[in-house]
Amino acid sequence: MIERVRVAVAGVGNNTSALVQGIALCRQTGSLVGVRRAVIDGLGVGDIDFVAAFATSEEKIGKDLTEAIFMAPNNFPRLDCDLPRADVSVTKGLVDATEVDRVAAALAGAEVLLYSAPSGRPETARAYAEAACKAGVAFVNTTSDAIARDPMWAERFQVAGLPLLGDDLASQFGTSVVHNALLRLLEERGLTLVSSYQVNVGGTEDFRNLVENSNTKKQSKLNALSATDKVELAPLGYLRHLKSQKVAHLNIEAQGWGETAISLDVKLKVHDPSGAAGVNIDLIRMAASALRAGRGGCLPEASSLLKSPPGTAI
Amino acid sequence: MIERVRVAVAGVGNNTSALVQGIALCRQTGSLVGVRRAVIDGLGVGDIDFVAAFATSEEKIGKDLTEAIFMAPNNFPRLDCDLPRADVSVTKGLVDATEVDRVAAALAGAEVLLYSAPSGRPETARAYAEAACKAGVAFVNTTSDAIARDPMWAERFQVAGLPLLGDDLASQFGTSVVHNALLRLLEERGLTLVSSYQVNVGGTEDFRNLVENSNTKKQSKLNALSATDKVELAPLGYLRHLKSQKVAHLNIEAQGWGETAISLDVKLKVHDPSGAAGVNIDLIRMAASALRAGRGGCLPEASSLLKSPPGTAI
Amino acid sequence: MIERVRVAVAGVGNNTSALVQGIALCRQTGSLVGVRRAVIDGLGVGDIDFVAAFATSEEKIGKDLTEAIFMAPNNFPRLDCDLPRADVSVTKGLVDATEVDRVAAALAGAEVLLYSAPSGRPETARAYAEAACKAGVAFVNTTSDAIARDPMWAERFQVAGLPLLGDDLASQFGTSVVHNALLRLLEERGLTLVSSYQVNVGGTEDFRNLVENSNTKKQSKLNALSATDKVELAPLGYLRHLKSQKVAHLNIEAQGWGETAISLDVKLKVHDPSGAAGVNIDLIRMAASALRAGRGGCLPEASSLLKSPPGTAI
Amino acid sequence: MIERVRVAVAGVGNNTSALVQGIALCRQTGSLVGVRRAVIDGLGVGDIDFVAAFATSEEKIGKDLTEAIFMAPNNFPRLDCDLPRADVSVTKGLVDATEVDRVAAALAGAEVLLYSAPSGRPETARAYAEAACKAGVAFVNTTSDAIARDPMWAERFQVAGLPLLGDDLASQFGTSVVHNALLRLLEERGLTLVSSYQVNVGGTEDFRNLVENSNTKKQSKLNALSATDKVELAPLGYLRHLKSQKVAHLNIEAQGWGETAISLDVKLKVHDPSGAAGVNIDLIRMAASALRAGRGGCLPEASSLLKSPPGTAI
Repeated sequence: MIERVRVAVAGVGNNTSALVQGIALCRQTGSLVGVRRAVIDGLGVGDIDFVAAFATSEEKIGKDLTEAIFMAPNNFPRLDCDLPRADVSVTKGLVDATEVDRVAAALAGAEVLLYSAPSGRPETARAYAEAACKAGVAFVNTTSDAIARDPMWAERFQVAGLPLLGDDLASQFGTSVVHNALLRLLEERGLTLVSSYQVNVGGTEDFRNLVENSNTKKQSKLNALSATDKVELAPLGYLRHLKSQKVAHLNIEAQGWGETAISLDVKLKVHDPSGAAGVNIDLIRMAASALRAGRGGCLPEASSLLKSPPGTAI
Repeated sequence: MIERVRVAVAGVGNNTSALVQGIALCRQTGSLVGVRRAVIDGLGVGDIDFVAAFATSEEKIGKDLTEAIFMAPNNFPRLDCDLPRADVSVTKGLVDATEVDRVAAALAGAEVLLYSAPSGRPETARAYAEAACKAGVAFVNTTSDAIARDPMWAERFQVAGLPLLGDDLASQFGTSVVHNALLRLLEERGLTLVSSYQVNVGGTEDFRNLVENSNTKKQSKLNALSATDKVELAPLGYLRHLKSQKVAHLNIEAQGWGETAISLDVKLKVHDPSGAAGVNIDLIRMAASALRAGRGGCLPEASSLLKSPPGTAI
Repeated sequence: MIERVRVAVAGVGNNTSALVQGIALCRQTGSLVGVRRAVIDGLGVGDIDFVAAFATSEEKIGKDLTEAIFMAPNNFPRLDCDLPRADVSVTKGLVDATEVDRVAAALAGAEVLLYSAPSGRPETARAYAEAACKAGVAFVNTTSDAIARDPMWAERFQVAGLPLLGDDLASQFGTSVVHNALLRLLEERGLTLVSSYQVNVGGTEDFRNLVENSNTKKQSKLNALSATDKVELAPLGYLRHLKSQKVAHLNIEAQGWGETAISLDVKLKVHDPSGAAGVNIDLIRMAASALRAGRGGCLPEASSLLKSPPGTAI
Repeated sequence: MIERVRVAVAGVGNNTSALVQGIALCRQTGSLVGVRRAVIDGLGVGDIDFVAAFATSEEKIGKDLTEAIFMAPNNFPRLDCDLPRADVSVTKGLVDATEVDRVAAALAGAEVLLYSAPSGRPETARAYAEAACKAGVAFVNTTSDAIARDPMWAERFQVAGLPLLGDDLASQFGTSVVHNALLRLLEERGLTLVSSYQVNVGGTEDFRNLVENSNTKKQSKLNALSATDKVELAPLGYLRHLKSQKVAHLNIEAQGWGETAISLDVKLKVHDPSGAAGVNIDLIRMAASALRAGRGGCLPEASSLLKSPPGTAI
């Protein structure tokens, strides 16, 4: 029987809530709904144990992980399953390099550190990567801050024989995935794109942060689209009542034979944290499997799950 | 300079209107909007001349092809370009084998016969195929009646050294294309389909005929979908005021990680005849090119443009 | 303290399920969600007791009303509340006049008979009306079969001092309500309607029956719309997986100043049986209140809740 | 035969383009499409002549009004009708009180001054009002800057016997009109609102300005909605390719009987300038009619066409 993966999480937000609850659901019911790969190198969805958790919110610190995931501003729903206590007390996270040793000590026994804090805190990201290195655990960077695509870090993990996966999670099923698929379809069928837009609204704390930094995000999303100047993005909108849901309205205006009009209107509604957890479950298993096999550095097999894998611009 | 393809059409409905007008538009403006392949074996979109046209409607017979295409019940719009007379008078078409010789004589000088009548008239389809054989012209069957997938006919055209393309046009960009692309995308991303539906409404005469035979069509569309019992089709609806447009409403309900809900709603609006003409323009050029190269029988390169190519069930 | 209304139901389908469960929910939680009038003549939503129930399905007969409402083909969801047994055993219903006396006897003690069978069985409707008359209870006809708008019946109930409410329930919030409101709004604002369509799909047994009789229903819906020949209805579609939900897709194309285009696209999703129960709860209380006040015959105050009140064509 | 109204316009943007072209279309074809009131006090839609036009853009000054309306950043489409020259040369507009006399002189012969500049320039608005007073012409303020609802101005126009109409045009058919109508409908039918949102994207220069001042506008739109904290507005989005069109996506989530879910999704697409011109045509005729009748000051009959009529907060 396979040994369970021992995972530490840095960040106890909605994405961690979805991950922790989804694993519990799978263990209880055997459900593989929404799971991309049932087994990766022998590791099932339920073969994950949480052994440490770090957060910065005073309220969450000291709570069991399975309680902390429901505390504000988290708003991912409570799934319909039993959730046994994790017996993991949330610990004070770090912000910069001054406390790396404390965190590294707390990582003893872990195999993978899932770094799942908000994007845009590069110093914090580097401090956790440092702690992972010191503690000898694999590192998964789900944020857009540059770690795996920074050659210095890639080499450090390579030398240390520790897997490094990142950067920036590609959601399992988000707006760009659908928008791109439809734009590609148009092109394959020989239609001519006239104009297209994408409007995204959502209710998570992450979304609220993005709205405040929307110019950056908007540009990054345009990069993600097979972007021409025919595709426009409206500013992101934070709508409190959507909670952990995101809604996208897409429009595509095109022309077919004889320059006749073709239009496509799409409404997409998803739970953002589910889209993240559905990818994290794969990254964690890839990281653990590589660690156990003694493979250090960046993992090519993870690239398709990431927006900015090694080799992309920092 | 390449010699233009000499085409005869059997059927002067909306699809022929779109084809005739779209070629004129391309010649006048050079527009390649909505064109899948600008050049096929040296043949451009404008390299098509109509040399004969057959219809059954009394009003259309005797008119120039460029007038007949605007007569009721045709309702494809008049495109925004000059349309020089074709100097091709619409001739009485045939219904069964009794007049094959007359039609074969009228085909003299043509290279390709595009059979573009309503589906569901197998005897008529066979009579035109017979006439094509006799006249020594390539045959393109855009209807669902079995010609190219009937081994007897395939062999006859093979022996005669005449290309045979068919059966049943796959629209350039229709509901099934979009629905399938989205269902496939879901699967690729590991989501679990819960249910899906498709509602189609349209205003062409073809659509009205389909509504009356909707059970057959419904089944054929279900076959076209990567169908499970989770995908349902509502009955087709004929809505006069849509004219040559078709509107489809698609809904997809799925589940992602943690069994959370994902929904996709799509509205697609297209001109049905444009979707047909955009494929016919490729089939005609393939047929002419093969004929000139002395290749008879079915053409593998045409299969992806057809719903029921040779080898599929009759 | 007010005396509870004693209600008998003929028909144990989805609409009865929604009514029975919704009353239980209101009693348990005090919820007035979706309730149009909290109190009618002193009667609250929870002031209804079921004292008899009739059905034709062999499976339902003999079951407690609170069990029978969940039996196939019923597919209205189980609401999230406790549902105490009604202690009312479902009895064999009647089909024609031969068993009126048996049913009348079973109505002893009831104040209101809610006739909630499928439409299109006029003989059955008349037999239940007859039984109500004999038993001295008020009659609510929710079907489109003519009872209240038949002067003969109106007079009989008038003479007997028994309230008669009908015919044909106007749903609390259906497609026509929304479509009409938008068409009226356009007119008020001076826009010019170009064309409009309505597509309805649903998954109840009632819906399946309507699909089979769609021509009739289609006409009746067109009557319900401020219909001009610019408004078209697509055929109703039965989609099993929608269960008790109905989905409508509406489109309105109009023109404003300068003949510029204005378009409105609407998707409406509702639970059909809730739309019926939300009206039945008012009709029952009106009926009981009139009966207790000694008012017989048709009730003007009920007209706005009905599609075919007295005075409309039979 | 009625004397035509002599109108001066301050501002030669999209709204003026729609007004000028729409009047020409009506004269040429007699079309009353999208016209709320064919005749007001004997004045038809075609009974308007432009006699002066003011603008600040260097490119527009000196051009005939019928040329200037098509100059950037205007992007309202060219309507499908002949547009005879107005023989009105666009004159340099004013910015503040220093040039009131010049403009007043240029207003000689006009009956109505339509002030149609961007909102948010109160000093300019007051200067034009001053010029109108001096020249003895009626004043229509389509901006949100306070003139008609400022008691000082109301009294000045009253005393001078000159009509004053304002402030802030209520669009003939905009997002708030539709959203409010649906929220009201829900309430009338007894449904319970759970949450609702509105997303607006558009491509006019006005829209781009609004996006930059979106907080103010957002609040004003929330005021326009029967606003509770259940209705949220996403930030406005400027999408260049929409040109003079605005698109709104509305969502309404509600509950009906039994707390079952009801949802409404709406896409609305309109030409913003048409919505303004369709109201301006009525305000101009009301102003001229009152002037000719010797009625000065604010006109109660105009209130329903304005967002901030006299009596509302400044």
